[in-house]
Amino acid sequence: MRALASELPHIASDILARLRARAPRVHCITNAVAQHFTANVLLAAGAIPSMTLSADEIGTFVARADALLVNLGTFDAERRDAAATALEVASEEGVPWVLDPVFIDRSEPRAAYAKSLVAEKPRAIRLNRAEFAALSGLEAEDGALLRYALDTLAVLALTGAVDEITDGARTVWIENGHPLMARVTAMGCAASALTAAFLAVESDPLVATAAALLCFGVAGGVAGERATGPGSFPAALLDGLYALDNKTLNEKARVK
Amino acid sequence: MRALASELPHIASDILARLRARAPRVHCITNAVAQHFTANVLLAAGAIPSMTLSADEIGTFVARADALLVNLGTFDAERRDAAATALEVASEEGVPWVLDPVFIDRSEPRAAYAKSLVAEKPRAIRLNRAEFAALSGLEAEDGALLRYALDTLAVLALTGAVDEITDGARTVWIENGHPLMARVTAMGCAASALTAAFLAVESDPLVATAAALLCFGVAGGVAGERATGPGSFPAALLDGLYALDNKTLNEKARVK
Amino acid sequence: MRALASELPHIASDILARLRARAPRVHCITNAVAQHFTANVLLAAGAIPSMTLSADEIGTFVARADALLVNLGTFDAERRDAAATALEVASEEGVPWVLDPVFIDRSEPRAAYAKSLVAEKPRAIRLNRAEFAALSGLEAEDGALLRYALDTLAVLALTGAVDEITDGARTVWIENGHPLMARVTAMGCAASALTAAFLAVESDPLVATAAALLCFGVAGGVAGERATGPGSFPAALLDGLYALDNKTLNEKARVK
Repeated sequence: MRALASELPHIASDILARLRARAPRVHCITNAVAQHFTANVLLAAGAIPSMTLSADEIGTFVARADALLVNLGTFDAERRDAAATALEVASEEGVPWVLDPVFIDRSEPRAAYAKSLVAEKPRAIRLNRAEFAALSGLEAEDGALLRYALDTLAVLALTGAVDEITDGARTVWIENGHPLMARVTAMGCAASALTAAFLAVESDPLVATAAALLCFGVAGGVAGERATGPGSFPAALLDGLYALDNKTLNEKARVK
Repeated sequence: MRALASELPHIASDILARLRARAPRVHCITNAVAQHFTANVLLAAGAIPSMTLSADEIGTFVARADALLVNLGTFDAERRDAAATALEVASEEGVPWVLDPVFIDRSEPRAAYAKSLVAEKPRAIRLNRAEFAALSGLEAEDGALLRYALDTLAVLALTGAVDEITDGARTVWIENGHPLMARVTAMGCAASALTAAFLAVESDPLVATAAALLCFGVAGGVAGERATGPGSFPAALLDGLYALDNKTLNEKARVK
Repeated sequence: MRALASELPHIASDILARLRARAPRVHCITNAVAQHFTANVLLAAGAIPSMTLSADEIGTFVARADALLVNLGTFDAERRDAAATALEVASEEGVPWVLDPVFIDRSEPRAAYAKSLVAEKPRAIRLNRAEFAALSGLEAEDGALLRYALDTLAVLALTGAVDEITDGARTVWIENGHPLMARVTAMGCAASALTAAFLAVESDPLVATAAALLCFGVAGGVAGERATGPGSFPAALLDGLYALDNKTLNEKARVK
């Protein structure tokens, strides 16, 4: 994927321009800890967040949304009911959606639930190494990732010090980001929400996912240069994302 | 309302001084995304937030509160039950309350619920143009706003690039604020909470509402000068609100 | 306790080093307003937060946790059910836990519930003067605090302008912190979570509690020097906590 890797900064810049022009609405079923930062990441990027979980209205919200995020960080009855309705409507209306199976390696009922959601055809799944193992039953080496992506028809985004994004046929590696991202809550959750926003304006899910994670990683790198610790980091990341341009993306991108 | 417009900065400064001296408690039934920032806006202004939704105790909390906010951004059964008890107690005890009918233009059950709450006599309703149309069934032109304010006996505060505040007899327009306020979540929700705090210490609801929105708008303008993007904006707004004084209000106010 | 007082900065520095090395997981049952900041305080200090409330999995999360926080700031049925399961598992597995009886002075059902939790043997209870009176039925003078600590076998941490920490036999007073801490939400809640993290790596509960509150207070003092108001204060506190070292602790500590 050398061509895609080298072109990704330009492509990401184009998708970001479309996002800012179209302001897609991203409906988020996400955990209570992440809601506030996730909303601000979407707004900083140019998208519009909505987050209702109410059974009475989530169907309407999702039907008119441009993308959907289902994050399992709070695994409660209210959110499971909301997800059931949301995914049914998303399927009917063709709304692309992202699965973020937070902490499924720590809880078997949560892992079982995540597996049932994969059958609902997420366009992308963002997770870490331990979560991948719990979801797929496979060790997170390259072959397993490709196989699971082909099996599920989802783009897999394994994030960490290096992000690996694959649809089974094409794979890119992104080495941006910053160590402080591991010392602030909700960073991964927000990256998943941004991926949903990119899927709203880009039809190739591999490209959308890789571009979203590149933008998030470059904004994180910029924030790492400016922040004086994990406290000042999230605001710096949002400022970096808001100001992100083609020049910065091309200068800072480390994609293979 | 030329006299009120020109005096509003001084009046706002006086109300803010009373708020800081009396530290009224404002009970907030608000959405999960907005709770944290709303609490910090109230604290920065000098008020005390409380936010419990529990059926067992919300009556006690509201009975002893100095003002109440009902925000519909999370339209769930728990919050509707909480609102029913809270409004009954507020009515018995004469606690002034503010309605913030978030996103009612996106969901008919939510709009119907908001209409039922207007009958419970909010002292003020803060909303945007689309929410006003959904609530009143009228287009948001001046005559409609005045008529709806007279019909409901509530102060209407239509916020946007210019805020318009009216009780049907008196109207003021405020041109403060900053474009970054649209790129950060919970700004409107927090402005509604601040309005509730001002109603706790000022008996004229038009004056209280206009003064609260002027303070919030001037603090937002100050923040816009200091912030480097939407990430650093909320902290700068809180700092600006905490430090707000008569001099800044008079220098920066753009009221008609 | 002159010896403990004078050695506390060194001891706190040692415990913090262990915390950073071991990265204990602290499960938090806490209120919705405080969840985000609490998670970030734990991460900045070097611990790992988890916050699920789901009946299906909280038992598993607590069984494998290194410490537990039960904060009563949101007194709802979901959290009470979660706390019942969590405390049963914590007792079986010997997981140390901290009680934070937020606002029990404002609501009798909440105070009664807090009293029932004290019987479940929290390792530490952090509260303010009014909450102590509601919990113990005693005025918060020195003798009462010592007596209640001896009766409950819990460390009592009464926080305010001066923090008083006692197990009935040993008492320390800490004069760190900053007035802006009263103008930002969730500061006390986060201090309780940090206490739980310290209990995970230090077996003497008095020492763990005093060391946690010293670190939090010194970080707050550093933040007060850097912040320009209550908006910029929380980020500065997190940065201060992340960077906290033996030198700063020894220079800034005001312990008796």
